[in-house]
Amino acid sequence: MNSQQLINDTIKTIVSLEVPHQQSIEVVAQRQSQLTKPRGALGKLETLPEFIAGVAAVPNPTLHRKTIVVAAADHGVTEEGVSAYPKEVTGQMVKNFLQGGAAINVLAHNFKIDVIVIDAGISIPSPIQGSLVQSSLGKGTENIAIGPAMSYDKATETITRGIEIFNEAHSKNPINIIGLGEMGIGNTTSAAALIAAISRRKPSTVVGLGTGIGASQFDRKITVIKRALDVNTNAVKDAHQMSGPEKAIAFLAALGGFEIGILTGIALGAAAKRVPIVIDGVISGTAVLLASLATPYLKKFAIPSHMSPEPGHKVVLDMLDSRDPMLDLEMRLGEGSGAALAINLCDIACQLLTDMATFAEAAVSTTAPIPEIEGRK
Amino acid sequence: MNSQQLINDTIKTIVSLEVPHQQSIEVVAQRQSQLTKPRGALGKLETLPEFIAGVAAVPNPTLHRKTIVVAAADHGVTEEGVSAYPKEVTGQMVKNFLQGGAAINVLAHNFKIDVIVIDAGISIPSPIQGSLVQSSLGKGTENIAIGPAMSYDKATETITRGIEIFNEAHSKNPINIIGLGEMGIGNTTSAAALIAAISRRKPSTVVGLGTGIGASQFDRKITVIKRALDVNTNAVKDAHQMSGPEKAIAFLAALGGFEIGILTGIALGAAAKRVPIVIDGVISGTAVLLASLATPYLKKFAIPSHMSPEPGHKVVLDMLDSRDPMLDLEMRLGEGSGAALAINLCDIACQLLTDMATFAEAAVSTTAPIPEIEGRK
Repeated sequence: MNSQQLINDTIKTIVSLEVPHQQSIEVVAQRQSQLTKPRGALGKLETLPEFIAGVAAVPNPTLHRKTIVVAAADHGVTEEGVSAYPKEVTGQMVKNFLQGGAAINVLAHNFKIDVIVIDAGISIPSPIQGSLVQSSLGKGTENIAIGPAMSYDKATETITRGIEIFNEAHSKNPINIIGLGEMGIGNTTSAAALIAAISRRKPSTVVGLGTGIGASQFDRKITVIKRALDVNTNAVKDAHQMSGPEKAIAFLAALGGFEIGILTGIALGAAAKRVPIVIDGVISGTAVLLASLATPYLKKFAIPSHMSPEPGHKVVLDMLDSRDPMLDLEMRLGEGSGAALAINLCDIACQLLTDMATFAEAAVSTTAPIPEIEGRK
Repeated sequence: MNSQQLINDTIKTIVSLEVPHQQSIEVVAQRQSQLTKPRGALGKLETLPEFIAGVAAVPNPTLHRKTIVVAAADHGVTEEGVSAYPKEVTGQMVKNFLQGGAAINVLAHNFKIDVIVIDAGISIPSPIQGSLVQSSLGKGTENIAIGPAMSYDKATETITRGIEIFNEAHSKNPINIIGLGEMGIGNTTSAAALIAAISRRKPSTVVGLGTGIGASQFDRKITVIKRALDVNTNAVKDAHQMSGPEKAIAFLAALGGFEIGILTGIALGAAAKRVPIVIDGVISGTAVLLASLATPYLKKFAIPSHMSPEPGHKVVLDMLDSRDPMLDLEMRLGEGSGAALAINLCDIACQLLTDMATFAEAAVSTTAPIPEIEGRK
């Protein structure tokens, strides 16, 4: 099967699914109403299992296998000095992920989440192979301040590989929920350029401090993104004229990153298998945004996790019609760290649904006799 | 030791403590800066361990024992029809807590949190004793819409018992963090009356839907609270003239609940032993607010958990100078459920501090060479 064909087939599957699956949601809602708590009192811890049931089409959602993918790649635009860290850090951090020393490892270990680390195109690969999924598309993207990030064919291939990686992992051991994480020095610049291009907003309204740059570097970052939008202006205009997967591929080719494209593919692959997708921060959100350009149905599978301080994140969530994130921890790390915390909340929400006693089981009264108001002073 | 004496001695201890303990905080902050992540990128997951270290005066905060107390009591004001549930539910839910079927049980079990359930004054006690801490102060408070909730002496005794219960639990097995939960049909009415009285706000600005009343019952609730403030107006005026523990006791006597007073005592007892206090919802927050009237130093020990939809909760957190809650899950259950989720976040935050690799250990570069801006176009 060629690249484009797998993407088209995956989208065809997504569109054919009844999501949300009303029958499953009703079973969950019915049980929620019988559990020993006022109706709705657990807030999102009640609506999350309904959402998951609606995606998975199961009346008793249980998260047996929770997975986070961390796709890593480099960005040619780091040549412009847009990041607080040198690009070597991408490969070094991947080594750290494989050795278990990063934040995502500690979170995933505690929350019993699998981590799949993917080399999507690191410029200086780490010598450690370990359990790294090798799917490098090159030594980082081209510098978007000079031209397109990658060719249209390579962008297609990137998304396709994401779908393939998901399908392989899922076929070995079915995944019940997936979080999208990433690592790539310079990738908030790529994400901000994509968000500005797709939303037609000014770069200054979507750019943030990334991993922690200062004021002068922030100005530089905005300038670089403006330049990227300028040199790729025809490609962006063309992309706006397209629809479906071509639109997603065209934007990815112009301004994207290999890890972003891989995550777009993972999201599409997951949706086609009815697996809920947990968004992490602004880069992860941008990947889901591209997937939603490929098919707007994708929006019905996405769960926001935390509110990133990157201003572009809010723009992305709005475009995804995404409900308010459940966590406000001022996190701006990436790696899927916010997604890991949200997956843990989804997990406990499903356990509450399963393990709490019903009013009948616990012999708790459900209604109050309300005295007449009249006659009292 | 008489009641008032224990309260005074506990406050004396609290005031004598160096909190925040700067030396411990600096050790934590120093380690945070060496971990493999951009400085501050974990947001509140970095500041929480600093806060805990500052309260506990330890440089390596670890939450060996996490505890939630659930104090339960009835409220005479339920006679006025202010709740969606009959008062029998208080005792029935306590039985549910002891049998492990409530939301707090599922959360605590998953997060490895101890639960201490206290009968602070249930009108219809459950036949099951189990591991219930017997500390009943009567069959519920008097109806605050008619007169004071309890006598000054009983209010003093309530707070004292909270301190004693904490001290006993802590002496058996030291507690590293404590969450304050409650159960008491009618207690959002008592809490709203206290908040309105203490903040001098109109009842309509602090009253919420409790466990889920309708519009007409909501109007009734406001009317009942106005009546409570009216019939207790002299007691409230007197309380405003007082200071320290007398002030807290006087407000509790006029409009409080037995479970609220027990939690006020638990908070004071915990602070005196340098144990961070996690606030749950509006009732738990009101108990901490009373403790902060007893001594304003208490504010330095409190951690907000989630933002309750009860409008009074925000008022309480503002009066406690409390930082933004970390969770926004639209929860309105009580039982310490929001506190349990926040304690889990505190736990993972401490584990990140302990378990993440440093830049040196992982051989990750820390700084980027920033190219000159001049000379580029």
